[in-house]
Amino acid sequence: MKLSTKEHSPGITDVPGFSAAGVGCDIRNSGDPRLDLGIILSSRPCAGAGVFTLNDVAAAPVQYCRSLLSPTQHFHGIVANSGNANACTGKQGEADCLAMADQTREALSLPPRSVFVASTGRIGRALPMATIKKGIRQTALQVTRDSAGGHDFAKAILTSDTRPKTVTVRIESDGKRYTVAGVGKGAGMIEPNMATMLAFLATDLAVPQSTLQATLTRAVHGSFNRISVDGDMSTNDTVILLANGESGATVDDNADLLDAFHRAVGEVCNRLARMMVSDGERINHVVDLKVEGAPSEEAAEKVARCIGNSLLVKTSWYGNDPNWGRIVDAAGYARVGLKYEQLNLDYGTIPVLRNGVPLEKNLPLWREEVANREFSIRLDLGMGKGSFQLLTADLTEGYVNFNKSE
Amino acid sequence: MKLSTKEHSPGITDVPGFSAAGVGCDIRNSGDPRLDLGIILSSRPCAGAGVFTLNDVAAAPVQYCRSLLSPTQHFHGIVANSGNANACTGKQGEADCLAMADQTREALSLPPRSVFVASTGRIGRALPMATIKKGIRQTALQVTRDSAGGHDFAKAILTSDTRPKTVTVRIESDGKRYTVAGVGKGAGMIEPNMATMLAFLATDLAVPQSTLQATLTRAVHGSFNRISVDGDMSTNDTVILLANGESGATVDDNADLLDAFHRAVGEVCNRLARMMVSDGERINHVVDLKVEGAPSEEAAEKVARCIGNSLLVKTSWYGNDPNWGRIVDAAGYARVGLKYEQLNLDYGTIPVLRNGVPLEKNLPLWREEVANREFSIRLDLGMGKGSFQLLTADLTEGYVNFNKSE
Repeated sequence: MKLSTKEHSPGITDVPGFSAAGVGCDIRNSGDPRLDLGIILSSRPCAGAGVFTLNDVAAAPVQYCRSLLSPTQHFHGIVANSGNANACTGKQGEADCLAMADQTREALSLPPRSVFVASTGRIGRALPMATIKKGIRQTALQVTRDSAGGHDFAKAILTSDTRPKTVTVRIESDGKRYTVAGVGKGAGMIEPNMATMLAFLATDLAVPQSTLQATLTRAVHGSFNRISVDGDMSTNDTVILLANGESGATVDDNADLLDAFHRAVGEVCNRLARMMVSDGERINHVVDLKVEGAPSEEAAEKVARCIGNSLLVKTSWYGNDPNWGRIVDAAGYARVGLKYEQLNLDYGTIPVLRNGVPLEKNLPLWREEVANREFSIRLDLGMGKGSFQLLTADLTEGYVNFNKSE
Repeated sequence: MKLSTKEHSPGITDVPGFSAAGVGCDIRNSGDPRLDLGIILSSRPCAGAGVFTLNDVAAAPVQYCRSLLSPTQHFHGIVANSGNANACTGKQGEADCLAMADQTREALSLPPRSVFVASTGRIGRALPMATIKKGIRQTALQVTRDSAGGHDFAKAILTSDTRPKTVTVRIESDGKRYTVAGVGKGAGMIEPNMATMLAFLATDLAVPQSTLQATLTRAVHGSFNRISVDGDMSTNDTVILLANGESGATVDDNADLLDAFHRAVGEVCNRLARMMVSDGERINHVVDLKVEGAPSEEAAEKVARCIGNSLLVKTSWYGNDPNWGRIVDAAGYARVGLKYEQLNLDYGTIPVLRNGVPLEKNLPLWREEVANREFSIRLDLGMGKGSFQLLTADLTEGYVNFNKSE
């Protein structure tokens, strides 16, 4: 089956049976007219799957969404806000989150426990519930299948992102067309096991809940869990996938369709993950880092994360400096037992180290390669078959300046 | 027994029987007249102990020093250079390191295997051996018991440090006086298990090698392994302790003296460690972070390192922003099973969180506290008795700018 991908699409409203909206209700109380509250709605009941932050400190909406998930539960939508994370807000936060779900249900006449909630933004402040209640009512009135609804939702969940992130994948087969689309936000606190990132996916295929959850878990493992901007994992990371069956086709009936569905969900997650790194706070470079020849995948991951999160490596990337010494140093402190004399390193296709010996004559080519906005690095440890790919970024003075206060 | 401590002392030459020197031989080939090669010499044979980087990629001098250590080996000194780390330099690096030891031995007529070697600076470049050989001869001629020798050695090992780091502890007992003194350098790549840090200690007590090693290991664990500037562990970290017995007193004969020796070595290491963080590359704040009430010391350490190495936490410190949300977020992703509702947090003596509830009325006091150049943070997890103290620093635009290229 053929898959076609489109980025910067309307996202969720590309999926038959789904509508959306986003409004600005000034949750930040800053007078800024930016959109900050959004709703995704399915007219049909959906199976739902979710993957959430592993942080011990999980925000109220994360705890609430986790409590909703079950093989038999049906869902109709998602309400999400930016500007306030509803994290570290105690009992009040739990009550506020529940109120958001209930107000959305009531405004749209939906059954109990059918609405997911997601929040992102400042930690430790109570939600302005009067503002949010008004915003939910207003958003519910504007929910539409038009592409404007998808675009507005994509804007409403942004925080320090500079642009909306959407992608639509169409599965074409025997003249029939199925859709998997997604919308996300990222920017800071982007690391292992997701980050201050939200992503919402929808499909018009019918998918049993257990298959849906397995598909999403696998896709998240291969995408959002392999990106790192600053190494910080947030309290609010949430990925939700809804399947409404509007197309009439069920993945269980058809191995080819199931396979195409897996690939489509993977593709949506990968594209959104790459957009998140590319739009990381004040970054100048996106780096595709591949560690190979490790004794295990776990060891390869450890080495990749040491390199990808090293301040000295990240600042050298910022300076367009092909500093292989810092990369090797960071690989070494992962302590997987590597031997320097066995290391092979490449920037793009340019050899840097061969069995630990630097090919200094290539220096001008190294410089050229790492001056690119996007480049790849391959480090082969020569120990085994474990490999791990991490999409990461440089560390800039702009990042530090941007994050020195909220 | 009474201990008295003096910082910014001559360091090594305060210890009877030890002499030192430092010269500038332009190892960086930059025309800069800065001192870059130093020798420490003991007229008597010494017992020697060492603690080294745990990085898989250990520099040639680290490997050489490790190979020298034994309970029966006697040492006469240390040769150290800055400007070039002799790391990632293969067989040539090993040969160059051995040549440094041999040239020092020959210049000072010392027996085989009696000289430690340490290097710090740029990774991946061969040492300029002609320059170094000339420098060693010159330094050997200048070795002196005068305080100038200690001061010059302290300068010769600096890299991006802005000031020399020395400390002398005197042990006074029944009219007798014993000395433990040390010299170190730090600045960047400062993290777990030391960093691009070198520290050399000497004492005029007689100490059996096994006692010497145990004392040093314990002191390093309590000091250099509890500091973090940027989370990067270097290829060259080295701490060496020499005991020449010049005082005629042996610690084994006297439990009180042994205890005083432990305390003195601990004190020298602690003072040097604090100087390293305070002189971290372009830092504005030194933060004493204490995590308490953890289920174990390991868990407390994990939480402390997540907080102390979080880019978002470090940049908020840079901005004088009392952002407890980022601290709690970082603690949460250590994943030791903490419960947000049990957290107590203080900035200095000012309560921030009590059972997870922020005491917002203290906000002006929080701001005042974190605006100090040095401040402390205490996080109590309310789970058990494990605790860990980490001395760390903020992350500044200056650091990023400074490290963007070598």
